[in-house]
Order: sequence, then C-alpha cells, then structure tokens
Amino acid sequence: MKKLSVLLLLVFVQAFAQTEDEKQLRSIYDAALKDGKAYPWLNYLSNQIGGRLSGSVQAQQAVDYTKAQMDSLGLDRVWLQPVMVPKWVRGTPEFAYLETAPGVTSNVPICALGGSIATYGRGVKANVIEVQSIEELATLGKEKISGKIVFFNRPMDPKLVNTFEAYSGAVDQRGRGAAEAGKYEALGVIVRSMNLRLDDYPHAGGMSYGDTPESERVPAAAISTNGADLLSATLRLNPETKFFFKLNCKQLEEVQSYNVIGEIKGSTHPDEIMVIGGHLDSWDLGDGSHDDGAGCVQSMEALRIFKKIGYKPKRTIRVVLFMNEENGLRGGLKYAEIAKNKNENHVFALESDSGGFTPRGFSFNASEANLKQAQSWKSIFEPYNIHMFVKGYAGADIGPLKNDQIVMAGLRPDSQRYFDHHHAENDTFEHVNRRELEQGAAAMTSLLYLFDKYGIVPSDKK
Amino acid sequence: MKKLSVLLLLVFVQAFAQTEDEKQLRSIYDAALKDGKAYPWLNYLSNQIGGRLSGSVQAQQAVDYTKAQMDSLGLDRVWLQPVMVPKWVRGTPEFAYLETAPGVTSNVPICALGGSIATYGRGVKANVIEVQSIEELATLGKEKISGKIVFFNRPMDPKLVNTFEAYSGAVDQRGRGAAEAGKYEALGVIVRSMNLRLDDYPHAGGMSYGDTPESERVPAAAISTNGADLLSATLRLNPETKFFFKLNCKQLEEVQSYNVIGEIKGSTHPDEIMVIGGHLDSWDLGDGSHDDGAGCVQSMEALRIFKKIGYKPKRTIRVVLFMNEENGLRGGLKYAEIAKNKNENHVFALESDSGGFTPRGFSFNASEANLKQAQSWKSIFEPYNIHMFVKGYAGADIGPLKNDQIVMAGLRPDSQRYFDHHHAENDTFEHVNRRELEQGAAAMTSLLYLFDKYGIVPSDKK
Repeated sequence: MKKLSVLLLLVFVQAFAQTEDEKQLRSIYDAALKDGKAYPWLNYLSNQIGGRLSGSVQAQQAVDYTKAQMDSLGLDRVWLQPVMVPKWVRGTPEFAYLETAPGVTSNVPICALGGSIATYGRGVKANVIEVQSIEELATLGKEKISGKIVFFNRPMDPKLVNTFEAYSGAVDQRGRGAAEAGKYEALGVIVRSMNLRLDDYPHAGGMSYGDTPESERVPAAAISTNGADLLSATLRLNPETKFFFKLNCKQLEEVQSYNVIGEIKGSTHPDEIMVIGGHLDSWDLGDGSHDDGAGCVQSMEALRIFKKIGYKPKRTIRVVLFMNEENGLRGGLKYAEIAKNKNENHVFALESDSGGFTPRGFSFNASEANLKQAQSWKSIFEPYNIHMFVKGYAGADIGPLKNDQIVMAGLRPDSQRYFDHHHAENDTFEHVNRRELEQGAAAMTSLLYLFDKYGIVPSDKK
Repeated sequence: MKKLSVLLLLVFVQAFAQTEDEKQLRSIYDAALKDGKAYPWLNYLSNQIGGRLSGSVQAQQAVDYTKAQMDSLGLDRVWLQPVMVPKWVRGTPEFAYLETAPGVTSNVPICALGGSIATYGRGVKANVIEVQSIEELATLGKEKISGKIVFFNRPMDPKLVNTFEAYSGAVDQRGRGAAEAGKYEALGVIVRSMNLRLDDYPHAGGMSYGDTPESERVPAAAISTNGADLLSATLRLNPETKFFFKLNCKQLEEVQSYNVIGEIKGSTHPDEIMVIGGHLDSWDLGDGSHDDGAGCVQSMEALRIFKKIGYKPKRTIRVVLFMNEENGLRGGLKYAEIAKNKNENHVFALESDSGGFTPRGFSFNASEANLKQAQSWKSIFEPYNIHMFVKGYAGADIGPLKNDQIVMAGLRPDSQRYFDHHHAENDTFEHVNRRELEQGAAAMTSLLYLFDKYGIVPSDKK
C-alpha cells in the first residue's frame, strides 16, 4: 500500500510538473509572439546602425545601443567587458572583370575576403587556372600555377539537406585557398561564393594566411555564383581569358571593443552561470540581420521574457553579446579567459548563430546524460514544432568555455535560406520574418528555463 | 531452431527493406535537389503566365503549359478533364479612402473579395461601425448598423504557432461577414486582411452570400492590415469618420475549363489509384506562386522523379492539377464525380496547398491504422527533417474523394510566412526558395513511394 502511495505521489508530482512546464512554455511563447522586442531591436540594429565589422563605428554603436536596451530591462547587472579586436577595412569597392581579348571585358561582382591583403599597385591581371579543390594544387604544381590567378570553383553540394554540411564541405577553399595557392606562386585567388543559389552577390567571409610568410601572401576575393559560372564557361571557351581584380582592403592596428553582458542573479544557485548569446559584430556588406543580429536580439529577448513573465531563475542567467566572431573570435576567447581567471562555474551555454529562421531544435555539445536530459523534454516542445535534439556543434563564441561538465547548445533554425544571405549584401532586415525570429527566441528561452529549473544532470549519471 | 531462423529471416528482410527504402528516399531527394524541374516550372507558371483566376486567359494558358510539360515526361497517359467554372472578374482597380472631415481624406489599400458584387453607382460612402465578430452584429442590431459600412477588424491570433489555426479563427469574417451584415441593412463590408503581419497589401479570398436574397447583398472588400489599424485608430479619434469605397467586380457566365491529369499505370495493381495534386487556379493579385503554383509543380515533379530514378509504381499514380479551388472547387468536385461514375478505386490522395515552404511533414485524414502506418516510416524521413505525422486536414481539392477506406494526406510546410503572401500582390515567385520547394516535392514523392510499395493497410487491421 505504502509503495503504491509513493508511486501515485510520484506520478502526481510528475504530471503536475509537466503541466507547470507546459504552462510556462506557453507563457514564454505568448510573451515572444505578442509584443515581443526581438524584432524592433533587430530593426534598430539593422536599419539604424547596419553592418558591424569589428573595430568599426557601427560596432561601437551596436555596443552602446544593446547596453542601453539591457539597462532598461531591470536586470541585476549590465556591463561592458573590454576586448582588443583586429580592425580590417574593405576600403573603396572592389572591381573585377574578365578579358577574353584585349579590350573585350565583362565586369563580375567580387568582394575581398576578410583578412586579405590588397592587390598590388593598380590591380592584378593574369591568366586563370580553375581548380575544384586545394588538393588539386599539388597535382598541378608550380609550373602550371605560377603567375596565374587560382580560381576555386567547387560548389556547395545541393543534395545535402543540412546546408551547414554543404558549407563545411566547401569553405576550406575560402579559408585556406589563398595560403595554399601562394605556395605555388599564384598571383591571386578567386573563390566561388559560399552560396547554394545562383545570384549576383559575392559573399564575404574570413580567410587566413596561417604562417605563410608575407612574401607569399596573395590577395583573395569571393566572386558571386553567377560570376563563377560565367568565368568557368568563359574559360572553357577561351582558356587564355584573363581576369583582372583590384582590392583596396587593409589590416589596421587592433582597437578596443567590448562584449556586452547582462545578468539576472540566480535565486538559489547564484554561482552556477548559464550563458545565452550571439555575436554583435557582422560583415559589412549587408546589415548583419541573420548573422548574427538575430542571435543577439533573441538572447536579450530571453532575459526580457523571464522578467516579463516573472520567472526568477535559480541560477545566474547571463546574456553575452560577443564581439568579433567573424574575424578573430576575440570576444569569445576573452570571455572564457576572464571566466577562468575568476573561477566562475559555467554550467550551460546556448548560442544562436545560424540565422533568425524558424527554429527546428537544438544541437548539443554535451555528455550523453545531458543530451538525454534535453531529449526528455521533447514532448513539451512538440506543440511548438521543436523536434531536433541532436549531438553536434553548439557555437563558435561559447566554444572556449568548453570543459567536461558544461552543457553547450546551439539553436538549429531551418537552414535552407541561410546561405542565400550569409555574409552578403542581402543579409538584411527585410529577409527576417518576425514570427520565425520570435519563435527562435521563445525556443531558446524555454530550453534555458528547463535547464535552470531542473539543473544540469551530472554527466557521470548516465 | 526453426522459429529462430524465421525470426532471423524476418529481421534480415526488414533490415534489408529499410535499407532499400533509405536508398530510394536518397535517390528521390537527389533527383529533386539537383537539376529538379519544380522550380523552373514554377518560374514559367508565375513569371510567364501569372495569376490564374478561374475562367481567365491565364488559367487556360496554365492548362496548356502544364499539359505540354506532362506530355514531355513520358507518362502513360495525359489528358484534360473538362469542367465548367465560375468566372468572376475584378475589373478596374478598387479605390478607397477615409474622410475625417469634408475633403480631408486618406487613401487606403483595398481589394474586392472574390464573389462580391460591385459597389452601387459611383461608390459607397458612409459612416463606419467597427466590430470584432459576426456575433457582435446581433448585439448591435439593425438600429446601429443600418446605413453604415461594417468593418470587421478581429486580427489573426499571433500567439498560435500554427498560422492555419490563426487563419481558421478569423476567416469567418471574410467568408460570411457580408452575408450577415446585409441582414442588418449595412451598405457594405470591409474586412481586415487575413495577414499576421502589418503591411500595405490587401489580401483577396473567397466570400459567399449564401442564400441571402439579391436585395440584401452588399459589396465586400479586404483592407490591408496597416489600413485596418489606421481606420480603427481614426475611428477612435473621430467616430464620425466616413469611408468611401468603389468596387468594379462582376460575376460573368460560367465558362469551360479543365483539370490537367497525367498518370503512370500501376504494374501490379493498376486499378488502385493514388492521386497527387494541387490546384492550378489562383487569385489574380499576385502570380499564385505559393497558392498553389507550388503544389502543382511539386506534384508534377513527383512523377518526373519516379521516371527519372526508374521506379515503376505497383499502383496507378495520377497527378491532378485541379481547376477552381479558390472560388468554387469545381475541379475537385468534377474529378470525384467522374471517379465515382467510373467506379474507380482511389486508395490514396495527397495534396500540397499550404505553400512552397520547407516541409515539416504531413497531416492525415485517414484511419488510425493508416496514420500508424505512416508514422512507422518516421525514422526513414528523419534525415530529411520531416517530423510531423499527425491527424488533420488533407486538402480541399481531394476532399470530395473521401470515403471510409481512402488515405488522404496534406503536405505540411512550415507555416510562418504563408499568410504574409496568401492571396495578395506579394504571392510571387521571388518569395519561393528553390530548396524549400524542392524538399516539399521530395517529401511528397517519398510518401507516395512508401504507400505505393507497401499498399494501404486495411483500416480494420488496427
């Protein structure tokens, strides 16, 4: 009899808890979907400030604006965390054309890759060698590459349903292409934009020369996908086609910038810190709405919602808007460094840096036990079409916080449209749907709520 | 021992079948995502033909175009099924303004609702009474309504994650508002557009006078959501504000049109017919890309993919592009009528009429046994992010085929952006993402493949 009562009590408690969580998620979604702040905040960041390259005036304006907005939320503490960031500037617009015979030219849209040096003198003009991979360079050798422009043209694979996988499968060309081509005395590098769509936008993005000596560094630019197809078709018709391009970019001295941080102190476990964040910097061609204005305003929205619905977290919830994810990760590194120096106990970190599209779920960089813990909430999320609770990458900015205990998670929005806009001129506010953005914020807030309420299952309790 | 062998054999057969299905789905997705035809077909339908109101030249062009495309697919049979359709025409553009004092006016964007009569003489100008529901009319009574324009302004509920639920909760105002307001001697009806977003597009859509006598019929128009908010705010400031509107629409004689049908004959069960379809007509303000060009090209794509990957269906697969879903459903009714007259055995019908957005899954109007059958394939669909297998509405056009045995299913795309475009000027091709459209086609083809391969579990085998 006694056993039965305990069992009944347990069932009752569990049923009650379930109902309470269901109610809480409903409140969270209601607060996000009716009079939410994520969308108007993003409107300001995108349309009143714009692209926020590290070290730019706009990046500083974004720091000031988001700090002021957090100040108005009634959090327990809001502060700026100083961090030195690289300052790379694009300069005057880039210019490029194909030349099939002397004076017979077609302009094509390009943009310098972030971190590239400028072109020498009045620009580079040379024959072109098209390759599909970095590996192909070794096969061709210096003889065939020296004095030419290397054109990396391997497209993202359209057959992959997860576009981030398609990106991973192609982005080495952008990241390491110039460093590798330089070894073979190439004069420059042109990379097909990381875009699944055929259009006229060149897509920026970071590249690195690694430890290539300065004498071997060559300028690198992205070409739009239509431009890449044109160049490739032209080369097939006339292998002697020349390519001209001029880049005016420059790496300046590092400058002071900031992570923007706000927190609600935990009521019962103030020393357990849960981070939610995105990155405040962006590339400069668009206004950085999806990458990653969306993640910033969704993270701020989570704390606003907690205040609005009167949820007092047990643990300390900290929103962190990281600076310089795009070309240095200095904000993420600085945040983790200071956390370590202060012996802070970070138990959870959630990042949104995959666009403001309809959320499908979360990927977890966490132990099996913690993944199972998250999966146990699947049914509570079902009415909101959040179905994905998988192992995987969580986010670049929170990456440096990694240890054996922390649960790291990344919001997984629908990925189909992301690379249509990523790092390009059309990553702009009008391509964000209000409801999709808001549902991402609500899903993040809900996950934060559940991990705060139930705590992190120790990872040895499998 | 024998039992064990049988068991092992079963496990082996099942594992093998699973692998075969997994491979087949991969082929289907590959065919859709690389060099698929859905997107170029939709490009033609949307940009070379445009909006396809029943009885219009464009509707006939769409019939001719899709018939010709089907003819090129090497199907076993392609034909046109004649059906008489209503022909309602919008006439010259509508016009409306608010008048807060004589001569002090603000124009607002409106459009006639499909099926409405025109305004009398030079237009209707009258005081306005704003209501939130049809029920409110009875409370107000003839005294307060007579001689006025009734303004239905209950918005779609933004808190509902499924926007189709929000639509269902508001659309009675558009469908029955005029018929009801006419009973109280209103002079006209203005309905807030069925749109969750604030913007300047009036959204068309069908309305019906039901059995209202002609003398009580009043003209009815939709106003954009921004226009509705302006009108409501203006009325609060000045309840004497007048509204003027002029509609030039007309119901003409019925005309001949067609359902466009193509089929692959079943190899082993040719008498079991499986339908896949969408509707070819659309409203006239946009080009009908999402509603329902998308569903048409996805359905055609399914048959193209079967031919492309060499899958020979056991059952007869029939693509049906229905005419006149928007203002009459004549195509769906005619198709079912002829199927019945011919004693055809329809075992399955799948409709796509919720936009060309990323597919989330399917809703089934089917027995529990058949729902379970579909749910048993959930894991095969998981790599493609198809997670929704629920009971629910399948589609208007296939509705008349309903009987106790048939499995009816509807594609369920992500619904967040649908009502931003639905029946409005901005339901246009550039708002369709190629990959989202293609994945809808692939998901539909996959479900068709599985039901064809395994057959429909009889619904008494629960």
